[in-house]
Amino acid sequence: MIRRYEERNIETKKLFGGEGQAILAHILNGAPEMYGKGRTFSICTLKPGCEIGWHIHHGDGETYCILSGKGEYSDNGTPVIVGPGDVTFVDDGEGHSLKNIGEEDLTAVALILYK
Amino acid sequence: MIRRYEERNIETKKLFGGEGQAILAHILNGAPEMYGKGRTFSICTLKPGCEIGWHIHHGDGETYCILSGKGEYSDNGTPVIVGPGDVTFVDDGEGHSLKNIGEEDLTAVALILYK
Repeated sequence: MIRRYEERNIETKKLFGGEGQAILAHILNGAPEMYGKGRTFSICTLKPGCEIGWHIHHGDGETYCILSGKGEYSDNGTPVIVGPGDVTFVDDGEGHSLKNIGEEDLTAVALILYK
Repeated sequence: MIRRYEERNIETKKLFGGEGQAILAHILNGAPEMYGKGRTFSICTLKPGCEIGWHIHHGDGETYCILSGKGEYSDNGTPVIVGPGDVTFVDDGEGHSLKNIGEEDLTAVALILYK
């Protein structure tokens, strides 16, 4: 199956009360396309100053792989600066957030798998 | 948890008899880091002319999301040209291959989930 970029589901929305909005370009459309093993597989774009607000995961874990840009990530409460190639992982019961603190778009692959 | 790029597991290897080699920069290290829900979550780089050879999936499905470059993808036997933003999906029991037919590196996110 091929799904061209223009056929992908693109959502722009405020996430968990974070500043501004996030653009989610879904790679797979949730659990039905993920054999029920997870619920998100997408590329997230944050414009400068925008963020995914702090939230705690329940019953799943989430990985970000930063593709471009510069971010401040809360690693379960500990702030760290992240950039291209860095991987973050939040386990079930832990929390995280991600803010674009650079001058270019921050893009990241996001994957949520059920625990 | 933060894993910096230089801490990631990077493999360079011939895949399924394809021309040249593929560079696999793992985002998560296989099933143990994927709650047993899949076995691959990585960014694959193919230099010009290199390919992931034809292979059939058994018991799982694989998604590629092309990040950059130009490729010829075999969609279960049907050749299609793919580029940035395109998503491919091979289901359990189907086959695929991917060759870089451009002049720049082809990069793709790859995710294998168990069915």
